[in-house]
Amino acid sequence: MTIDKKLLRNGPYADLFSQGVQVGNTLHMAGQVGTDAEGKAPDSLVDQMKNAYQHVESVLKEFNCTMDNVVEETWFVTDMHECMTQVQELFAARQAIYGKPPEVAQTLVQVVALVDPSFKIEIKCVAITD
Amino acid sequence: MTIDKKLLRNGPYADLFSQGVQVGNTLHMAGQVGTDAEGKAPDSLVDQMKNAYQHVESVLKEFNCTMDNVVEETWFVTDMHECMTQVQELFAARQAIYGKPPEVAQTLVQVVALVDPSFKIEIKCVAITD
Amino acid sequence: MTIDKKLLRNGPYADLFSQGVQVGNTLHMAGQVGTDAEGKAPDSLVDQMKNAYQHVESVLKEFNCTMDNVVEETWFVTDMHECMTQVQELFAARQAIYGKPPEVAQTLVQVVALVDPSFKIEIKCVAITD
Repeated sequence: MTIDKKLLRNGPYADLFSQGVQVGNTLHMAGQVGTDAEGKAPDSLVDQMKNAYQHVESVLKEFNCTMDNVVEETWFVTDMHECMTQVQELFAARQAIYGKPPEVAQTLVQVVALVDPSFKIEIKCVAITD
Repeated sequence: MTIDKKLLRNGPYADLFSQGVQVGNTLHMAGQVGTDAEGKAPDSLVDQMKNAYQHVESVLKEFNCTMDNVVEETWFVTDMHECMTQVQELFAARQAIYGKPPEVAQTLVQVVALVDPSFKIEIKCVAITD
Repeated sequence: MTIDKKLLRNGPYADLFSQGVQVGNTLHMAGQVGTDAEGKAPDSLVDQMKNAYQHVESVLKEFNCTMDNVVEETWFVTDMHECMTQVQELFAARQAIYGKPPEVAQTLVQVVALVDPSFKIEIKCVAITD
């Protein structure tokens, strides 16, 4: 059975997976990390989080969506203690990105490691396109 | 593009995320932890699991759903060894909550930590509302 | 409210969860690990990955699906360093399984442990059936 997928494949890992896959009105996005324009992750967790959401927004845009369309997000962090000590700054920055109190279900867990040792956060989102 | 979300925002983190977000017939729920009515997590993993499912049931109820509606659950535990040594008791208690052999896809992994060091389990569910 | 679920329950854990749950055109699959026909996990991560995808394919087949139907996968590995040192071999083997550059969103994180200490990878997929 063939399904009608809309795909976004770009960036350094375009041969390995899609940044977003839409079927019907559901958009599954690859986990996004905190790399900047040079592909490097800044030291600050807050900055990495902002970068990760910028990547999320870039993917959403390709599917004519905005942060409003996100319904679920999972944060994989590598240091929960660091995360909790900066939690107010993190969530304030996140609310600025969403533009309002996020209308999204969240899960937050600490994993051992992400793909690169410099990565402190990976954000995996599901969006509904319409 | 605006989508029609049904939201549940309550509890101590109501400003940060929604406990449940429904669009169409899919309900994404925030990961639920094992806190009791006072917001404390009991020492026992089984008790934390029961509490977490009580939270799941509370969220489901707000969307006119029951455990029957859950199609997928991920368990994030902080001690797989403890989990496996209590696996029969855990799954018996879980089956009592579902009321029958669970009709749900499950994933179970050990993470480093959840939001609070006292939390031993977080359960993230997806439900279909009708 | 009752929903119309199509379930696959088989294998050693059939009483505990379903390998796949389909409602509407969405199929949620249980995380699949790298066990062989005797239920043992080979030492090689690549071999475990191949076995895990064989289990994924078996589940998909029961729902009249193939790897083409997978839209999202999360890899939980227990050793990111091992994973990255074998990344070319892993992704080449994976592409052979998909039969083309995967049209799938991916997330990859290192957890502390999976259900059995011998397991090095668990793959959790979502598929769209038509």
